[in-house]
Amino acid sequence: MYEGLIKRYKKYLDVDEKYIVSLNEGNTPLIRAKNLEKILDGVEIYLKYDGLNPTGSFKDRGMTMAVSKALEENKKAIICASTGNTSAAAAAYGARAKLKVIVIVPDEKIAKGKLAQAIAYGAKIIAIKGNFDDALESVKKISQESDIQMVNSLNKYRIEGQKTAAFELIDDLKELDYFMLPVGNAGNITAYHKGFKEYLKDDKLKKLPRLFGFQAKGASPIVENKVFKNPKTIATAINIGNPASWDKALNAIDESDGQIDAITDEEILNAYNLLAKEEGVFAEPASCISVAGLIKSYNEGKIKKNSKVVCLLTGNGLKDIDVCMNNMDFDIKNLDDDYALIKEEILKDL
Amino acid sequence: MYEGLIKRYKKYLDVDEKYIVSLNEGNTPLIRAKNLEKILDGVEIYLKYDGLNPTGSFKDRGMTMAVSKALEENKKAIICASTGNTSAAAAAYGARAKLKVIVIVPDEKIAKGKLAQAIAYGAKIIAIKGNFDDALESVKKISQESDIQMVNSLNKYRIEGQKTAAFELIDDLKELDYFMLPVGNAGNITAYHKGFKEYLKDDKLKKLPRLFGFQAKGASPIVENKVFKNPKTIATAINIGNPASWDKALNAIDESDGQIDAITDEEILNAYNLLAKEEGVFAEPASCISVAGLIKSYNEGKIKKNSKVVCLLTGNGLKDIDVCMNNMDFDIKNLDDDYALIKEEILKDL
Repeated sequence: MYEGLIKRYKKYLDVDEKYIVSLNEGNTPLIRAKNLEKILDGVEIYLKYDGLNPTGSFKDRGMTMAVSKALEENKKAIICASTGNTSAAAAAYGARAKLKVIVIVPDEKIAKGKLAQAIAYGAKIIAIKGNFDDALESVKKISQESDIQMVNSLNKYRIEGQKTAAFELIDDLKELDYFMLPVGNAGNITAYHKGFKEYLKDDKLKKLPRLFGFQAKGASPIVENKVFKNPKTIATAINIGNPASWDKALNAIDESDGQIDAITDEEILNAYNLLAKEEGVFAEPASCISVAGLIKSYNEGKIKKNSKVVCLLTGNGLKDIDVCMNNMDFDIKNLDDDYALIKEEILKDL
Repeated sequence: MYEGLIKRYKKYLDVDEKYIVSLNEGNTPLIRAKNLEKILDGVEIYLKYDGLNPTGSFKDRGMTMAVSKALEENKKAIICASTGNTSAAAAAYGARAKLKVIVIVPDEKIAKGKLAQAIAYGAKIIAIKGNFDDALESVKKISQESDIQMVNSLNKYRIEGQKTAAFELIDDLKELDYFMLPVGNAGNITAYHKGFKEYLKDDKLKKLPRLFGFQAKGASPIVENKVFKNPKTIATAINIGNPASWDKALNAIDESDGQIDAITDEEILNAYNLLAKEEGVFAEPASCISVAGLIKSYNEGKIKKNSKVVCLLTGNGLKDIDVCMNNMDFDIKNLDDDYALIKEEILKDL
């Protein structure tokens, strides 16, 4: 019986078993993208759908560690800044652990589903007139000035938990050539790199996959090598102008012979639509940047033939349905409950 | 590497491998509910969180079978009536299989997240002025009069796929005493019963778990033994007045020494709140009836001490966030980005 990633990967995670707080996170599907392979000929493509974690994003991987460690260290409260996914995870694991949870989110820049989660799990929510980077500054200060534990990815245990996704990939596939992922605060690219390196050291992997990170064009500080004071993208989860793990991201890219590139909101929405309509996978916009990035890299000739590629889908599409409702074409037919009318409507399209 | 429930349980599912359409559904977490156990003393409680299936509900289990079989039988289009979850699953698997998908939903009685999914996956959506039962009548007729395959649970392959959830429970727990689940159209209780019986026959299980089914008070035709012409409950996924598998549900309850009971919307909302705030699990309202039902049954003395109980959570809370926003107490603090103010707000509650 699967009981969460700390128990599965205990060799790589230092936690006293009696403090484990888990929702059986991890163990997420790796879905073969056969329809996408027909478009990008000669590449074997998989989708790591981390949106099927318990709170709907990859953040649960780090949060099981951060909250277990907070209990082990006898903390009574946790705090995070968040574009939404971190707050949902912190609120859920915090509730389960009976800790007080405070989340600071940017006013009006958080997807509704994520806000609903923080409400449902009972967190204290502070919405500030500022962006994620501003929120993180306050969180860093208060965690230094009080006994409240910060659970953003600057908390080292978060990265420890998140690295397990790299283990799962290699346990499933044995090896891969390219790994495509969104880059926001840059904690996740740091975590994957750490995970792959630990497996390399243990001879479970022969060669590091090339890490291809992608930022949204309107929030691409690492690509442009400058802080973005007012980042702006439809991909709210990566709407970050001054990534906390900037240097570590650069190191991960360098050591893995990877790259970092910027993707437009239009390209993100195209990938969002393609994933749902071709593969039957509904992922949140920020997630889809990994597929948009693969398409761009493929078209630029950067992906070798016959290589094996994994695109990371970090969050569930249900987190942010406004993006769907506002950007996808649809036409709902409203009819009376009249079989003749219904039949006519159905058959005319077939 | 896990590749979906048809491959995992191929001994029990008759599908030609080359037609399999899968999103790696199934293999969902079984979460120990330790905080709930503190409230319901002397009972071992688990939550089967089927809301972590690829489209966010248990419907994916049946849909992988129904759509694979539709391909095997050379169908070009599928159709379903739906309160929302079935349409999301049909649209996703249909998209992946390159089939035309038509969904008929009750006008204004479908959760927004579910509608967004059908839109995202590209289904043709017909909203009728009527309820689920009306929609199902039209679907039955058109599937008889044309070559369009019905994928509601009257399609026998749906039940075949859904029975695998029973296998997973027994593979994880070896045995259990009570199984609590929502009852809407009654396909799922039929499926679990079939699954448990097949494992019993194969000596993988010693004794059938007692099936405790729950309907919402405003949509409780089986409990009241009468059709509900205008069913009404906050739990939209089970807002059904004339269940298609009525007789099979009664048989499942009878053979397993189970019961069926009605639960008020207020009790459902209490369980919804409790699950999120105590266990960190955000499930859709209809799901929470299994926990509300356990609480009611426990209080009525129907649950033996030291027994092992599983509550089924059929869908993800993100499917219907309006219920959260409209029914849960919350108070978001809007502040300027001023550290002194933020600090004061945080510390005053600790």
